[in-house]
Amino acid sequence: MMKQRSFCTSLWQCYFEYSTPKILVIRSFKVGTLNRFTQALVIAYIIGYVCVLKKGYQDTDTVLSSVTTKVKGIALTNTSDLGLRIWDVADYVIPPQEENSFFVLTNLIITLNQTQSRCPEVRHFTGFYCTSDRDCRVGLRDTRGNGVQTGKCVNYSADVKTCEVWAWCPLEMDAEPPVPPMLGDAENFTVLIKNSIRYPKFNFNKRNILPHVNTSYLEHCVFNRITDPDCPIFRLKDMVTEAEEDFQTMAVHGGVMGVQISWECNLDMPSSWCVPKYTFRRLDNKDPVNNVAPGYNFRFAKYYKNGDNQETRTLIKGFGIRFDVMVFGQVTVVCDWIVLTCMTKKNLYMEQKYSYVDDFQLLSSETP
Amino acid sequence: MMKQRSFCTSLWQCYFEYSTPKILVIRSFKVGTLNRFTQALVIAYIIGYVCVLKKGYQDTDTVLSSVTTKVKGIALTNTSDLGLRIWDVADYVIPPQEENSFFVLTNLIITLNQTQSRCPEVRHFTGFYCTSDRDCRVGLRDTRGNGVQTGKCVNYSADVKTCEVWAWCPLEMDAEPPVPPMLGDAENFTVLIKNSIRYPKFNFNKRNILPHVNTSYLEHCVFNRITDPDCPIFRLKDMVTEAEEDFQTMAVHGGVMGVQISWECNLDMPSSWCVPKYTFRRLDNKDPVNNVAPGYNFRFAKYYKNGDNQETRTLIKGFGIRFDVMVFGQVTVVCDWIVLTCMTKKNLYMEQKYSYVDDFQLLSSETP
Amino acid sequence: MMKQRSFCTSLWQCYFEYSTPKILVIRSFKVGTLNRFTQALVIAYIIGYVCVLKKGYQDTDTVLSSVTTKVKGIALTNTSDLGLRIWDVADYVIPPQEENSFFVLTNLIITLNQTQSRCPEVRHFTGFYCTSDRDCRVGLRDTRGNGVQTGKCVNYSADVKTCEVWAWCPLEMDAEPPVPPMLGDAENFTVLIKNSIRYPKFNFNKRNILPHVNTSYLEHCVFNRITDPDCPIFRLKDMVTEAEEDFQTMAVHGGVMGVQISWECNLDMPSSWCVPKYTFRRLDNKDPVNNVAPGYNFRFAKYYKNGDNQETRTLIKGFGIRFDVMVFGQVTVVCDWIVLTCMTKKNLYMEQKYSYVDDFQLLSSETP
Repeated sequence: MMKQRSFCTSLWQCYFEYSTPKILVIRSFKVGTLNRFTQALVIAYIIGYVCVLKKGYQDTDTVLSSVTTKVKGIALTNTSDLGLRIWDVADYVIPPQEENSFFVLTNLIITLNQTQSRCPEVRHFTGFYCTSDRDCRVGLRDTRGNGVQTGKCVNYSADVKTCEVWAWCPLEMDAEPPVPPMLGDAENFTVLIKNSIRYPKFNFNKRNILPHVNTSYLEHCVFNRITDPDCPIFRLKDMVTEAEEDFQTMAVHGGVMGVQISWECNLDMPSSWCVPKYTFRRLDNKDPVNNVAPGYNFRFAKYYKNGDNQETRTLIKGFGIRFDVMVFGQVTVVCDWIVLTCMTKKNLYMEQKYSYVDDFQLLSSETP
Repeated sequence: MMKQRSFCTSLWQCYFEYSTPKILVIRSFKVGTLNRFTQALVIAYIIGYVCVLKKGYQDTDTVLSSVTTKVKGIALTNTSDLGLRIWDVADYVIPPQEENSFFVLTNLIITLNQTQSRCPEVRHFTGFYCTSDRDCRVGLRDTRGNGVQTGKCVNYSADVKTCEVWAWCPLEMDAEPPVPPMLGDAENFTVLIKNSIRYPKFNFNKRNILPHVNTSYLEHCVFNRITDPDCPIFRLKDMVTEAEEDFQTMAVHGGVMGVQISWECNLDMPSSWCVPKYTFRRLDNKDPVNNVAPGYNFRFAKYYKNGDNQETRTLIKGFGIRFDVMVFGQVTVVCDWIVLTCMTKKNLYMEQKYSYVDDFQLLSSETP
Repeated sequence: MMKQRSFCTSLWQCYFEYSTPKILVIRSFKVGTLNRFTQALVIAYIIGYVCVLKKGYQDTDTVLSSVTTKVKGIALTNTSDLGLRIWDVADYVIPPQEENSFFVLTNLIITLNQTQSRCPEVRHFTGFYCTSDRDCRVGLRDTRGNGVQTGKCVNYSADVKTCEVWAWCPLEMDAEPPVPPMLGDAENFTVLIKNSIRYPKFNFNKRNILPHVNTSYLEHCVFNRITDPDCPIFRLKDMVTEAEEDFQTMAVHGGVMGVQISWECNLDMPSSWCVPKYTFRRLDNKDPVNNVAPGYNFRFAKYYKNGDNQETRTLIKGFGIRFDVMVFGQVTVVCDWIVLTCMTKKNLYMEQKYSYVDDFQLLSSETP
């Protein structure tokens, strides 16, 4: 691309060659003014946008967090199976403690007095129907079944026969969950969420029970964005409503809610300005057109021994809402070397070589 | 380095100086063609490699996820202690629900009818052997022991004496777990993993039960990379086999499996192309040369009260496989300012100043 | 800004223009030496600072981890309610297994033989006091109460009347937890923390039971920073003490401890140099001036059935310490393309165009 090239006559000569771009310095009031004005714009951009808006000069740290939760509330059910029954926190929070999550039972299908014995398989799948023992296979354990087949074909009801199974009998009636949900009272339960955060780099600790919150306030307050934004006690229904869901509908099949606690703190500001922001969102699917396998449920049992030392159990298919508490946060601190960082980061002023050419000498002295 | 320098005669003059590299513009068909060809190569590189392959022009977001699991299956055991016994999901998933994880019991050592009473310490550690009461210390609670020593030395067996302890008696026989594993049937258990994801920045939701999966398909399908890649129901044995482990071997001492769900979506493409990828991997150690403390087990108990209102319990040392579900994901979206981003990012075209020198005037007009 | 401009006479001519900065090559021993010396400094900086100190040439990967824990130890309590009672791991770890966390019960308020029946509300809140039935409302379920009001006003004690509730009776006496803590013995409990890590990108596996740790050592060792830094068995009191807390004080109300395991490995070094570092820190708040709602507790129950098939339960308000195990780690590996990466990253040598001008021809041949 170059018209004229003189090659190194020896490697030695080549070694001591030095290449540099030619720089022109214009000494002119008009050009200089334009130049300085452009530089002023650049500096204004750096200070205004990079430093003030984007905070490019700040040091950051991510959060270390611990979450504990405590649900309160009482529900009352009245069913033919159980009669009048009270449900308190030890009954409806399963398991009783988890790391960043808690589950509240809102609906259930209960099967009382199960024992290990024989009974006809429920006619949930057509595969379990039979007309004679030949249709049943000894030892078969179908994944969708409730037990191991004994090889007999027995009466399930007056007109239907199914294969007999060795199982926890009587079997659960795998029906749809009750509507309205049995523990619909859960909408008035409250949960105290205690969240402590720590930014190790800056040795900064804070928790969501703010300094001005005292014991007597904690005893009666309930979170409300307008009237009680600092109260760490949340009514379950309020959380679900904020996620634009209907509690009673969600309570039927259960679901998963996300409780997001966001700590975006600027340690340059007073520490009291560093407060958590709460957001609530439904995490599992509720797409009405793609509503296969909706909700959240699981089975658990309470085990008893009767007078004969025989084990019996109460099986509960529990539907409910799991609340996953997610803590996000970033803290920022101004560094001393503001301008330095801004400038090195942006690589804006990397001019290091200058040659000086006078405005009036341009035509006679082009050699830099 | 410069041959000629003229210094600022005053600070004022200096202030209005403007420096710029000298630019040579060559008007030549040959050089111009070469130049445009090189530029075409660079543009091809940007479009082909940076934009298409590396997706340097895209905006990204990380995933917000919720996971629920539901295990199904029946196991049958036949032991002298328990007789014929059925195990269903309420029996073998402990605890019944967890946030991103589930545990399936595969093997166990059971100790029935424990009560708070006195019995000889098991001879697990030589420290518990004794010949007379003087070898035992009242109130000693050794971390490796099962109770608090009463100070007596009693017969453990016909020929061995150990210190007596106040404990849940009879004590568990701390033996090796049974081989084959008692709940080896667990290999045929299936688990439905429901995973909903959300990319908040793009308000994009999806779940691993894809739109074309309907209820009847979900009732019988089992995940298979070739025949059923969209079925979210996994056979436990298949998962363990994919991790290159043998289920029956792993079931003896237990272990930890990782189920990785990866969502790498490009929202420019049809949403139906955004599908999860499943990977299975054993997470705990199985190094045969460093096999100290292998597997995964824990103890839990079921508590009963007998006729005299005395508490008894069944202690179970449960061995099993914990499946930790880990969701990874990044979604990408094309931005409007494709070329701009590509170019500023790559700093490829930062030429902003031009001077024009005609091909034929080069020798006479060097002044830029 | 340019004094002389010659414009393209046609678009075609414009298309074949080629612009390039003018480059000056100085062939001079003095300048060349200075140049090479400066380059040597830059190379020394790259190798010394960027490569050796900052490891700018290394590739990194984040950790995939699995954690399992196993607590051992025996506690003895002697209360009027329970008499002499032994607590073992199945009694005090609740739930029996969690993913990256374990909870050890250290203190408790126990309420025996609760049944679903009627009893006077405890006088915890003034709202429950009454003088006649008119002060109580049938069906009222106060979030702070223990049951559903029956509408009667009954004697709570000789001189105090409260509203009667349908609840799990007798109600728990919501008092302060006992001091000293009932399971103060927990300070001598030990926990084996098994942690396996994996760096998928480098196919590197390691676990915190190091290769030289054998079974017999594991049976008696306890972690100590000086004498046993490789033992993965930790005494609970030692962990709490390292976090500058007093175990017996913390055990009264409970709390949350963080166990940080840090794996910072350089895979260039022998694999045996890659060892975990343990740090212990209290995660929940213990600020004495902001001590509202201190500690960590939750309620759980054990369910029984008595001779009449009536359900009774033992309610336990359990205070204890939750240990959250957090694994951090980054592994680094040298890449082959050391110098290349260093240089492209740092943009130090981006000179690509040269023109050659001889030292002695400068005045006569400025045309590049």
